[in-house]
Amino acid sequence: MQEKDISIAVIKRLPRYYRYLGDLLEHGVTRISSNDLARRMNLTASQIRQDLNKFGCFGQQGYGYNVELLYEEIKNILGLQRTYNLIIIGGGNLGQTLANYSNFQKRGFKFTAIFDKNPRLIGLNIRGLEIMDVSGLETFLKTNPVDIAVLALPKMNVAEVLPILVQNDISGIWNFSHVDLKTPDSITVENVHLTDSLLTLSYRLSQKEKGEA
Amino acid sequence: MQEKDISIAVIKRLPRYYRYLGDLLEHGVTRISSNDLARRMNLTASQIRQDLNKFGCFGQQGYGYNVELLYEEIKNILGLQRTYNLIIIGGGNLGQTLANYSNFQKRGFKFTAIFDKNPRLIGLNIRGLEIMDVSGLETFLKTNPVDIAVLALPKMNVAEVLPILVQNDISGIWNFSHVDLKTPDSITVENVHLTDSLLTLSYRLSQKEKGEA
Repeated sequence: MQEKDISIAVIKRLPRYYRYLGDLLEHGVTRISSNDLARRMNLTASQIRQDLNKFGCFGQQGYGYNVELLYEEIKNILGLQRTYNLIIIGGGNLGQTLANYSNFQKRGFKFTAIFDKNPRLIGLNIRGLEIMDVSGLETFLKTNPVDIAVLALPKMNVAEVLPILVQNDISGIWNFSHVDLKTPDSITVENVHLTDSLLTLSYRLSQKEKGEA
Repeated sequence: MQEKDISIAVIKRLPRYYRYLGDLLEHGVTRISSNDLARRMNLTASQIRQDLNKFGCFGQQGYGYNVELLYEEIKNILGLQRTYNLIIIGGGNLGQTLANYSNFQKRGFKFTAIFDKNPRLIGLNIRGLEIMDVSGLETFLKTNPVDIAVLALPKMNVAEVLPILVQNDISGIWNFSHVDLKTPDSITVENVHLTDSLLTLSYRLSQKEKGEA
């Protein structure tokens, strides 16, 4: 089944299903009804059945879902049956924080290099990776398999590295820079705009205050 | 106008309008047509007019939008006419990274304290803030104005601090912990689930590969 058949909203819920099922597994739960899962996830049972049916995951009447099977199924749907090689561009606070997240590695996302142009950062060792000079980025891409480039650099520096990623056919970009990237359709971009998220929060807080006033 | 009248999708686009208008202002652009703005933002002109009309922002026929007025208007809608006091709970890599983001401060989000329970972190100075022992969290909340608590701690530690935030009527939570919070409706929660974002990317990459195969 191709992405175009399935709405963004459903896709965005998949990692959440995966997270909840992983927690259930950790707690030794072997089967769960859509009602029970719905209650935990603050969804409706029919929404859960609808979502999972879309991916060919069917519960059994009177039994519910086998947690481990469903977990493995969603794992495959999420593309986690394989590992991914990631490089981080930007070795500052954020880049280092991401490199240090053991959760990503655990799920098959392997950081293979970190780049920066700041001489004070180059050579620094982050979880076994030495920060490399970004001038070596192109050579690295030509000689190593890289699936995802993580952009953890200021937006004014994006223009220096984006063409190199595009020319070397990077498959995915996980973009933390506060700018929308102009990339060919062949590149899949997932944005994390932290400031946008914070402004959404301030909007909602200010609406709440107006409502109370 | 209250939040309930406006769809989440529109709300999510507001920070993006704000970002683009800020860039235009920085480049000395004083007015812009909905067509031009649409082209830059990769939206349609009619969508932009629709969105902005919802917030009472109307362009003028043959003139377009006054960039500065529109910027100020959206700034107010986003609740940025005031400042917010934020505390960070979790003084590890992520908490320190957020505390170091000058962009947040620039927009009126002021970090006033960082808490952790790790003795190795307590006392550390991050951008002028000394990481405090989380045992002092409740007293701090009772004696200082705090609008937003930023949760930058492992999910297993959330249960220790969440009741304190709830009991002290925190208004907003910016949640980076990899868990969905159970909070009363009076608390506005904005989630940043980094792992979910990465899994959405791997899903899309794996769908792309299936499509090519």
